[in-house]
Amino acid sequence: MSHIERVAIVGGNHGNELTGVHLVKRFQQYPNLINRSSFETLALLGNLKAIEEGKRYIDKDLNRCFANQGLQNPQLSSYEDTRAKAIQQILQPQNQPFVDVIVDLHSTTANMGLSLIFCDMHPFLLRLGAYLSSINPMVKVFINPQSREGGFLRSLCELGFVIEVGAVAQNILNAELFQQTEQLIYTILDYFEGCNQGNISQTKSALTFYQYIETIDYPRSNHQEIQAMIHPQLQFRDYEPLNPGDPMFLTFTGQDILYEGVSTVYPIFINEAAYYEKGIAMYLTQKQQEVV
Amino acid sequence: MSHIERVAIVGGNHGNELTGVHLVKRFQQYPNLINRSSFETLALLGNLKAIEEGKRYIDKDLNRCFANQGLQNPQLSSYEDTRAKAIQQILQPQNQPFVDVIVDLHSTTANMGLSLIFCDMHPFLLRLGAYLSSINPMVKVFINPQSREGGFLRSLCELGFVIEVGAVAQNILNAELFQQTEQLIYTILDYFEGCNQGNISQTKSALTFYQYIETIDYPRSNHQEIQAMIHPQLQFRDYEPLNPGDPMFLTFTGQDILYEGVSTVYPIFINEAAYYEKGIAMYLTQKQQEVV
Repeated sequence: MSHIERVAIVGGNHGNELTGVHLVKRFQQYPNLINRSSFETLALLGNLKAIEEGKRYIDKDLNRCFANQGLQNPQLSSYEDTRAKAIQQILQPQNQPFVDVIVDLHSTTANMGLSLIFCDMHPFLLRLGAYLSSINPMVKVFINPQSREGGFLRSLCELGFVIEVGAVAQNILNAELFQQTEQLIYTILDYFEGCNQGNISQTKSALTFYQYIETIDYPRSNHQEIQAMIHPQLQFRDYEPLNPGDPMFLTFTGQDILYEGVSTVYPIFINEAAYYEKGIAMYLTQKQQEVV
Repeated sequence: MSHIERVAIVGGNHGNELTGVHLVKRFQQYPNLINRSSFETLALLGNLKAIEEGKRYIDKDLNRCFANQGLQNPQLSSYEDTRAKAIQQILQPQNQPFVDVIVDLHSTTANMGLSLIFCDMHPFLLRLGAYLSSINPMVKVFINPQSREGGFLRSLCELGFVIEVGAVAQNILNAELFQQTEQLIYTILDYFEGCNQGNISQTKSALTFYQYIETIDYPRSNHQEIQAMIHPQLQFRDYEPLNPGDPMFLTFTGQDILYEGVSTVYPIFINEAAYYEKGIAMYLTQKQQEVV
């Protein structure tokens, strides 16, 4: 990345994830907090109507509406399709690159601390991740390779990524996580400023990251009713090792269901509320290290 | 109470409180779990449509629709008004007493453990509370005097009460709380069986309970936007003493807001997600003890 000209911070891409909503409102009220001398910063609310109603979304998940095909289809007229087109006009006017970085703020009921989610192994992002996780052990890096046609907001620019904080329930604010997320954003902006000014060390450093393997659904009946819950021994244990034979689920009748894989994995997004309807009880990841 | 003939267990009075929803589904599938020899037990789902959609309610809070005036008003035709009338027909056919006890299952994002909420000081309920809290320290008793015209489901019979479990996010299941709630229900049913069979000791015992004082709202702007969050030192500290001068809120700009009362209180329902819209950051209670 030669020079960062514009950064967008988006909160409330999901309307019931209040940390990002209130951070962006704060940045809109006090732009000095996110202004840096060498680039411009925009603070933007995502799903306005869902924020007002305290819901994840109105008709469909806004964070799946940013695929090119959808954005260019005038037939799509749900609230979220319309809002996605409006956001694109702000972040990509005339379909031209405009912002260099999108920071998309999310929260989760899973115990993910301060997670950075990257959709590819872009060297600039990996170095950012190495820097942030070296100064704060709560910062984790999850690499979730995703096609640009997945419709994610972050795919509107090359350096788009998600900050996913938790555990926090939907529709509440946790003051501690709020302040930690706020500090993380300032550190990220200062890092960009340092990059622009040539003040960031180019020394290689080790990055620990978690690479997507697969998603695991809840055990379900023929009628798609869930039959089991996240096992108490796994609840809130995101980023910790799950070994073959460890308990994963507990059925409503009290039976343990064990992890039957052949190697150790690192589950994340364990018991995320919004993923019940998506058929996801957790993501399994591989823990890796790389010098970046 | 001379003899208990019928007990109703209701889950999903709020559709996004999954503990009660899945407990009732389990009881409907395995009625033997809640059958006792000396009385009949009904297991009933509350807000069917909201359960399906994973929301607290569709048009309005079902648990405010059980006032006599509303139930008898044919003009009221929202989904919840209609459902309230249908539930009344099951629990109070021909407006006659039918069930002796209603156990209304709720969950909360506040750290309320296993709370019993009584709307008056009925001696039978107080003795039940004394018994349950003596065998399980997670059980707390909250007395929240409420008029029959508040529209609460539990007001459909003399011995109606709420079990409120937490902390658990909306729209997720916490296996540990699920099992603890299930066990609590069995203990309650066994207690009723013991009462009917004359096997419950009539010895007086001490009950610690928490009596409603008032509700406290978040600090808000002129536009009703919240200006502060629950203070990290108060978060998850339900039923613990809050002394004059202790921090209560933390503003978005990082300032502490202190409790300015003159005596020690015991906050509960701290940071309940559904209460942001009701203007409630917490309830303040007084801790009391009585021999019952």
